Amino acid sequence: MPDLDRMEAIVSLAKQRGFIFPSAEIYGGFRSTYDYGPLGALMLRNVRNAWWNFMVQQRTNVVGIEAAILSSPKIWEASGHLAGFTDPLVDCRKCGSRWREDQIEGVCPNCGSSDLTESRDFNLMFKTFVGPLADDASVAYLRPETAQGMFVNFPLVQRALRLKPPFGIAQLGKSFRNEITPGNFVFRTREFDQMEMEFFTPPELADRYFDYWVNERYQWYRTLGIPADELRLRPHEADELSHYSKGTIDVEYLFPWGFGELEGIANRGTYDLNAHATHSGEDMSYFDPQTNERYLPNVIEPAGGVTRAMMAFLLSAYDRDEVGGEERTVLRLSPLLAPYTVAVLPLSKKAELQQVSDAMFASLSMEFSCDFDVTQSIGRRYRRQDEIGTPFCVTVDFDTLEDNAVTVRDRDTTKQVRVPVSEVASYLHAKLGSVAKPHATPFV
Amino acid sequence: MPDLDRMEAIVSLAKQRGFIFPSAEIYGGFRSTYDYGPLGALMLRNVRNAWWNFMVQQRTNVVGIEAAILSSPKIWEASGHLAGFTDPLVDCRKCGSRWREDQIEGVCPNCGSSDLTESRDFNLMFKTFVGPLADDASVAYLRPETAQGMFVNFPLVQRALRLKPPFGIAQLGKSFRNEITPGNFVFRTREFDQMEMEFFTPPELADRYFDYWVNERYQWYRTLGIPADELRLRPHEADELSHYSKGTIDVEYLFPWGFGELEGIANRGTYDLNAHATHSGEDMSYFDPQTNERYLPNVIEPAGGVTRAMMAFLLSAYDRDEVGGEERTVLRLSPLLAPYTVAVLPLSKKAELQQVSDAMFASLSMEFSCDFDVTQSIGRRYRRQDEIGTPFCVTVDFDTLEDNAVTVRDRDTTKQVRVPVSEVASYLHAKLGSVAKPHATPFV
Repeated sequence: MPDLDRMEAIVSLAKQRGFIFPSAEIYGGFRSTYDYGPLGALMLRNVRNAWWNFMVQQRTNVVGIEAAILSSPKIWEASGHLAGFTDPLVDCRKCGSRWREDQIEGVCPNCGSSDLTESRDFNLMFKTFVGPLADDASVAYLRPETAQGMFVNFPLVQRALRLKPPFGIAQLGKSFRNEITPGNFVFRTREFDQMEMEFFTPPELADRYFDYWVNERYQWYRTLGIPADELRLRPHEADELSHYSKGTIDVEYLFPWGFGELEGIANRGTYDLNAHATHSGEDMSYFDPQTNERYLPNVIEPAGGVTRAMMAFLLSAYDRDEVGGEERTVLRLSPLLAPYTVAVLPLSKKAELQQVSDAMFASLSMEFSCDFDVTQSIGRRYRRQDEIGTPFCVTVDFDTLEDNAVTVRDRDTTKQVRVPVSEVASYLHAKLGSVAKPHATPFV
Repeated sequence: MPDLDRMEAIVSLAKQRGFIFPSAEIYGGFRSTYDYGPLGALMLRNVRNAWWNFMVQQRTNVVGIEAAILSSPKIWEASGHLAGFTDPLVDCRKCGSRWREDQIEGVCPNCGSSDLTESRDFNLMFKTFVGPLADDASVAYLRPETAQGMFVNFPLVQRALRLKPPFGIAQLGKSFRNEITPGNFVFRTREFDQMEMEFFTPPELADRYFDYWVNERYQWYRTLGIPADELRLRPHEADELSHYSKGTIDVEYLFPWGFGELEGIANRGTYDLNAHATHSGEDMSYFDPQTNERYLPNVIEPAGGVTRAMMAFLLSAYDRDEVGGEERTVLRLSPLLAPYTVAVLPLSKKAELQQVSDAMFASLSMEFSCDFDVTQSIGRRYRRQDEIGTPFCVTVDFDTLEDNAVTVRDRDTTKQVRVPVSEVASYLHAKLGSVAKPHATPFV
């Protein structure tokens, strides 16, 4: 299927099946914001949990935090965002419209006039006022990245958990940027969902940890289902490096419009801790009791986008094939990412199947995200589960009342096997496949 | 322990051990905002997951969504927030300070002057501008509640998932209110974390579902560890009911300063769907194909606060007792809420224990939130795990190399048992205790 058709198919499926809706659709939508429907909310949970398990839970040297979204101007002054996080804008003197200077050709795209103002810097942070007065002392910003939450909390976290570099502080959460040109569905939105980690390392290990995290993050996407030919690593050129970065490599996905960034892994050096030490007057260094030395750790930052990743997983998973002479749409999502791991499908609505079906749902839903569907023919229900990516369907039929077993159907092969009711959960666990596991770091 | 001492103890423990930090502490804090440290982030995850599992995953008739925080003024016009979500404020003409009229005695608390302005309505929604122009057409509000996300998406969700009332739409997420007087630690903050569900029911079942959800929510807090004598249900008096409510009952917790709201269960009738139908011109009713009738469902809303719940769980769990003649602090948290379910503690740092300890951590951390601590004496490490509420410690010692077993210690009893390495995970699963399970609704 041509790439742009695939994009259209995903956008349509996302809306029809309840993954992603335009926000406030009954009011005609609202400025490129999106709401995530029932299946989208489940999938976002799965992407975040897959990240958290791989980056935090399964490691002894990474911890998580959740910092506030409303944040002090002092943080953004120190980080450089107040002065430098800007786009150049020009106004058209004829029609009053406003444009990003680097995206137009010296002529207003609206009215064609070349009578434009000088360009000036437009800050991309959302500003609001906290408390009853709307004055300079009350300004707060919606954080434009989660990263600074890890930097400003570095001393408190290090002491409270008695951590010794190398260690990481990770965070899942929303950030906000007043993008002039959002677009490409949920690829670039003003409100977005980050998964970021700041890894604080002794300076002499920084280069090795940079390579390590690039590989860990690349493998994470691969393990969760992105094929090698749709994923690439792209080192930033010297002239596109951020001011804080000593080196950045992007993990890029082959979107229908070309390669685009899923995640950037940056070597931020001591830039951030140093900036906050200077601006706050606090000592942000680490004292190593073994060497009796004090130093500013270097920072390696893998920073990814949750909804971008979700979009890439959906695009890679989308497939059409033929089953029994009939075409079907199937999302070949990793079982770890699929909104529902399993669907319980009573063959009929008849009362005698209800108790055993309810009990099946009650038991499986303790452990798995689980759909329950008793409408329509079983064939149509299988098609529906295929289309939303459910890897397993459990059908409760009249034989179940005799043999105390159910039919488990595999989404990808459509093969069916009979499994005793008491063994369904362990059967599914065995089928779920391996999660991404951290690689050891023998150079620590 | 006197109640206010308990409060102080929790605030101090929360900071020292990495549950809750004042935001931007290196810059002197920021306006009653808080950041959640490593243990707080883990506990927030557990509270949210306990809610999600009970309210969404284990039910066939409740689905989740995640709506955007940046939202259209049209939503808040329809909901009544733009006109009515206000506090009455007065300015002091002498010193320029601003106050909530209902919280002062006609005299400025700052300078004592009684020369105050007339009071006027101050809207509690945070306002910002989206896009390059800061004009009326660019206004957006940070949502002051997650509830409206469920109402405006009702038709899309109902159709995409082919749902038939009674069914619920649930959401976890942040909301923002520009409170004039935040306080009591994380009880009242401007940025807060909600767990809300809107349950859409045929009108004739509304009263029964109201009672049902009051009981479900009350039991949820009880099952997760709040004792009966610290929890009460309080029906709102007629004069404190919100304009949209036909009846509200609060679940209140006995905080150190008295009973305070954890959650409100409201019967919102058809107020919200009706308001959005009127303002948007869209049909928000449900067409029942069985009766060929169209109606606006009634809505029952259980709306709770995640960080308030976390605070209540911490306060109820806090205990001091004596173990072997020594006083200890112990957080008797439900194993489902404790930041770490289990800590892996190698008895010594010696190399021969490393491989088996690492393997123990690698295997347990696939399923459980797991600490790993190799510092200090084993006694001090037990005390530390007690203080942060870890229900189980797994000690790997030199006998482990011979008998392939470990010591599992229980936080509450401090009893220790020897468990084969291969059985530790299932031993812990068996000990984790029962989760809250939904009650059936035979009246559907």
